[in-house]
Amino acid sequence: MKKIRVGMVGLGTVGSGVLHVLRTNAEELARRTGTVFELTRFASRSPERWEGLGLDPAKGATNPMDVALAEDVDLFVEVMGGVEGPRELVKAALKSGKCVVTANKALLAEHGDEIFAVATHVGRRIGFEASVCGGVPVIELLKTGFASENIRRLVGIVNGTCNFMLTEMADKGTDYADALAEAQRLGFAEADPTLDVNGMDSAHKLALLSLVAWGVRLKTDEVAVSGIEAVSSIDINFARELGMTVKLVASAVRGDDDRLSLSVDPTLVPSSSLMGQVHGPVNAVMIDGRHVGPLVISGAGAGRLPTANAVVADMLEAARFLDRPSCDDAAPTGYPEKLRRDAVLLPAEDARAEYYLRFTALDRPGVLAMIAQDLAQRGISIAQVIQHGRDKKEAVPVMILTHEARRGDLESAVAEIDRSDKIMKPTVVMKVLREVA
Amino acid sequence: MKKIRVGMVGLGTVGSGVLHVLRTNAEELARRTGTVFELTRFASRSPERWEGLGLDPAKGATNPMDVALAEDVDLFVEVMGGVEGPRELVKAALKSGKCVVTANKALLAEHGDEIFAVATHVGRRIGFEASVCGGVPVIELLKTGFASENIRRLVGIVNGTCNFMLTEMADKGTDYADALAEAQRLGFAEADPTLDVNGMDSAHKLALLSLVAWGVRLKTDEVAVSGIEAVSSIDINFARELGMTVKLVASAVRGDDDRLSLSVDPTLVPSSSLMGQVHGPVNAVMIDGRHVGPLVISGAGAGRLPTANAVVADMLEAARFLDRPSCDDAAPTGYPEKLRRDAVLLPAEDARAEYYLRFTALDRPGVLAMIAQDLAQRGISIAQVIQHGRDKKEAVPVMILTHEARRGDLESAVAEIDRSDKIMKPTVVMKVLREVA
Repeated sequence: MKKIRVGMVGLGTVGSGVLHVLRTNAEELARRTGTVFELTRFASRSPERWEGLGLDPAKGATNPMDVALAEDVDLFVEVMGGVEGPRELVKAALKSGKCVVTANKALLAEHGDEIFAVATHVGRRIGFEASVCGGVPVIELLKTGFASENIRRLVGIVNGTCNFMLTEMADKGTDYADALAEAQRLGFAEADPTLDVNGMDSAHKLALLSLVAWGVRLKTDEVAVSGIEAVSSIDINFARELGMTVKLVASAVRGDDDRLSLSVDPTLVPSSSLMGQVHGPVNAVMIDGRHVGPLVISGAGAGRLPTANAVVADMLEAARFLDRPSCDDAAPTGYPEKLRRDAVLLPAEDARAEYYLRFTALDRPGVLAMIAQDLAQRGISIAQVIQHGRDKKEAVPVMILTHEARRGDLESAVAEIDRSDKIMKPTVVMKVLREVA
Repeated sequence: MKKIRVGMVGLGTVGSGVLHVLRTNAEELARRTGTVFELTRFASRSPERWEGLGLDPAKGATNPMDVALAEDVDLFVEVMGGVEGPRELVKAALKSGKCVVTANKALLAEHGDEIFAVATHVGRRIGFEASVCGGVPVIELLKTGFASENIRRLVGIVNGTCNFMLTEMADKGTDYADALAEAQRLGFAEADPTLDVNGMDSAHKLALLSLVAWGVRLKTDEVAVSGIEAVSSIDINFARELGMTVKLVASAVRGDDDRLSLSVDPTLVPSSSLMGQVHGPVNAVMIDGRHVGPLVISGAGAGRLPTANAVVADMLEAARFLDRPSCDDAAPTGYPEKLRRDAVLLPAEDARAEYYLRFTALDRPGVLAMIAQDLAQRGISIAQVIQHGRDKKEAVPVMILTHEARRGDLESAVAEIDRSDKIMKPTVVMKVLREVA
């Protein structure tokens, strides 16, 4: 039996979940993997909670660095959250010879380069499955099953909060504000949901997925990001009329010239597709490879026990390798450090897609002609127009689907159209993605 | 750079696919994994094809045992098919110290016990990802991401031929015979499709999935199997009316008493679910765990390049471990040999489910009363009845959905009903599975 001495920092939602998974499955884990995890050290800010969690206060610390540097720890588990604190802790743990498991997406999105470099330099593993898509083991999948694959596209629904809200809006006809309130009431959305609904959380995850898929370094601010704040039930209903459904989609496409096109956008996908049937606070990633074709994995993208399960799976993987002198053959990102390179990006304005536009226009003769002309001037052709009802006094929604267009051209056309005094609100722009599993 | 000497037997569809993947990705593989695969030996029955495949005839053999026993081979890749030949070859390769990768489902379904025992005894790895669900890396997923999970259910659409046929029938209204002919024309179905359409192929895969999920040994003939031969477009249309779609579903459920209930049945699943949107020659497996909840993985279940990609992924995994003295910590099935145990099964007749029944009945007064009474006598209650149209001369379809019922009771009721001279054809029985991701 292999005994692994674990030091864990953070005893909040994920940390207590890890304790739960380890305890309920201890016997099965030991039998199945021959591994026993012993929590020799832990740290959290609230010593008064330790006994309630069944922990021995003698092993507790309030300074997490005591755990990172402890000599009786083989495996350092960081589930405390934050960025600068964990950054120093994880580096210290690696440098003192420990393997590391972290669930910290923000840490890796901001300082992944530095941390992966330290891990490679000291030859210690760092697992971060739990940092992307919670209980969906997409990092492991990309590193093993797809290690020999030439990946062309990643298409992800990677923010459970947004997907819950869009599902509510579609199923119950509620509007954005009510859907957000419901997500907060049920605990799917943070008190400050900004990073979820504005797409930045999805961009963080897309950057980490691209790192593992292609070995590229990229900054989150290199991703073209739109959130779901402007999406309303009007759009959901137009989408339904088209046999489509609205999802917040994070997309990375590798061109034949090896350039990556990265974006996060509210996107129409066919209802009759796997991605179109991802309901509620769920994540899904489609991996489209040259040999395998599209593969979809979908499951709980967040939550205490799904995330804890991913942490424990990483702990098991670390345990398998703990007696190896180095992790050269299993670099943290699946790519040897020396091969990691800066991403070469297709400029966002050069990306091409079909687009959904919803104008809020006064019902006057000539408005549609004006819109059509501004689009045509930039080479954008129209595939479909829908306008329901007429109202001489109020503005009415006008939906236009374009054929494939250059994003830069589309954005400047919409900006020009929105300057018209017949357009009463900023136009809603979404991508249309028909080729999806 | 780590050089791995590969010996491959079989140069058919999968074998030539492996050559293709290795060649097109050789540079990327070497850069990414630090591994170079060199084909030092190969065998096939047709030497005249070797040069056309770009192979050096000096390395070729017509007797595959020459490859299994060769001293200049580290990794033995078996992609020739068949059972008794590969059985001896794989054992010989393991005993002579080689790691093994095989795509051979029939071999493992029939002799997996013996082969895994040999692998464990000699401390060599055997990878078999390609043997189940082609390009969908569900074996790896169960062995890593779910190693710490308590799995309650596996629900799989694991036969691409059947799923293609059922999709054709639903989308185009074609009937069974035409759908089968189309599957054969497109190369999705074998000349003899018996094992596909009668569900036995799905049962083989379910047995292998259960082995990895729970570490249990079981024989394929312990799975209760129904095929799709009796499913007609009448059933597809009734299903649509219910908001459901028909899939051939392989299901393994672990009860609280640790007993497994295993079956393969044509099954109604909600159209508005991931499993309901698995179209065409595609496989999908839902893994339902205590901590993670339902997770679905879906992709190409067969085909030359998807299967070849799975073989190469297994070769890479083997390469990572080739310098290790033993594979004790990475047993072939994810469970140490000494822990593998015979499955304890719930008798098929004790399984409970909702059922879809389609009777072909003469349109006479009293027929429905007779059916209802025979069901009621065995404690089976009716949830819904649909009968469209009337025809005094011909038999008409009568659809009944039951509430949850014991399978044994249902089968004896249907057997009794079918003995009536008012029932003109054997009744079609399908499961109804509402709780699915």
